[in-house]
Amino acid sequence: MATIKVHGSPYSTATMRVTATLYEKQIEFEFFNINMRNGEHKKEPFISLNPFGQVPAFEDGDLKLFESRAITQYINHEYADKGTKLTSSDSKKLAIMGVWSEVESHHFDQVASKLVWELGIKTLFGIPLDPKIVEENEAKLDSILDVYEKRLSESKYFGGDSFTLVDLHHLPSLHYLMKSQSKKLFESRPHVSAWVADITARPAWSEVLAMIPN
Amino acid sequence: MATIKVHGSPYSTATMRVTATLYEKQIEFEFFNINMRNGEHKKEPFISLNPFGQVPAFEDGDLKLFESRAITQYINHEYADKGTKLTSSDSKKLAIMGVWSEVESHHFDQVASKLVWELGIKTLFGIPLDPKIVEENEAKLDSILDVYEKRLSESKYFGGDSFTLVDLHHLPSLHYLMKSQSKKLFESRPHVSAWVADITARPAWSEVLAMIPN
Ligand SMILES: N[C@@H](CCC(=O)N[C@@H](CS)C(=O)NCC(=O)O)C(=O)O
Ligand SMILES: N[C@@H](CCC(=O)N[C@@H](CS)C(=O)NCC(=O)O)C(=O)O
Repeated sequence: MATIKVHGSPYSTATMRVTATLYEKQIEFEFFNINMRNGEHKKEPFISLNPFGQVPAFEDGDLKLFESRAITQYINHEYADKGTKLTSSDSKKLAIMGVWSEVESHHFDQVASKLVWELGIKTLFGIPLDPKIVEENEAKLDSILDVYEKRLSESKYFGGDSFTLVDLHHLPSLHYLMKSQSKKLFESRPHVSAWVADITARPAWSEVLAMIPN
Repeated sequence: MATIKVHGSPYSTATMRVTATLYEKQIEFEFFNINMRNGEHKKEPFISLNPFGQVPAFEDGDLKLFESRAITQYINHEYADKGTKLTSSDSKKLAIMGVWSEVESHHFDQVASKLVWELGIKTLFGIPLDPKIVEENEAKLDSILDVYEKRLSESKYFGGDSFTLVDLHHLPSLHYLMKSQSKKLFESRPHVSAWVADITARPAWSEVLAMIPN
């Protein structure tokens, strides 16, 4: 097995999705830091790994991938026997997992990524935030979390009884949002709140957070 | 096998993604028209099928799904032996397919869905369009199609030598965009243009178009 390479930034939510999966699967990897403040993600050599100039990019031997959720799915499929099982083998359960996976990607992330940018990254780098964007997206997040509360009152995790890639895909945005004013939206909902506490306590997740410079 | 049920609108791109997959797989289904102009997608009984109040929703016996791409993947997996093979069984090829599938979902569709709304649906229903949104999104589409032109000069389809779900997921937006001013962005690129001609000529796609009322 060739050494797996991850090119990204420890602050980037999309990068963290990939490293979280690798830690869950107990797979060693080499991390190449892309300095986004210097625009390294828009230049060669990075741009040859991802023509859209976004982190992360990933290499496993000859195979070169980008798009965080495509990478996590590949790792999960290719290294099915290692570490945590992050998926189901039953076709109907897999289909339900697929639904919530799309919900993370098309509903939650659309809104969460804007709030992470405004309340997380901008604060981190001392850039003033846009209160209108925050307000609009917190209202949308509120409706999405109503749906989440119902789902999580019926099922411990999004994919069923056990932690899967769907839950994992949420972790990086939760990290930023739970340190921001948006935290209240999660804390006011008992099942969402218990789910956040459960998944953020995973040892693999601590390893991802340990990569962030102090 | 219980009859498959699709609840949606023949004008909806997300609905067409599902019906295109069913026609490719030669699977019979019953279609339930959701009248979106009357807001049926925001009320019971539909809202119980999709808590986000968006079409399509899907039923296969007891299994109830929403989110078009989760549905197409389920059909493809569950009915692997029927009709057109829309995926690869090789793990590395599947990973590459995964990358472009995410590109459709996180790059192409983000922009295309806005243009379809402005130039397709609004025109269809006589609502005035917003020229600023059109301009902004055509500029983004232009950059995305540069990446597409390169990919399609190296590979006949996004997933490799044969038509897969990734190509299929683009079809509904292409239908609207190729009838709009944005058509020029596709036609000016030879590989993109050949790909559009090829995939829109598929018999299964004609069956989807035949569902649209005159
Ligand atoms: N859909 C992509 C999103 C990647 C993404 O947005 N990465 C951000 C950092 S979290 C980035 O590189 N932003 C810089 C840019 O878009 O120019 C994925 O999941 O990998
Ligand atoms: N990500 C969803 C998108 C579904 C969607 O946006 N459907 C549109 C019609 S194409 C809709 O129902 N729009 C009404 C609304 O959002 O309120 C999917 O792929 O199924």
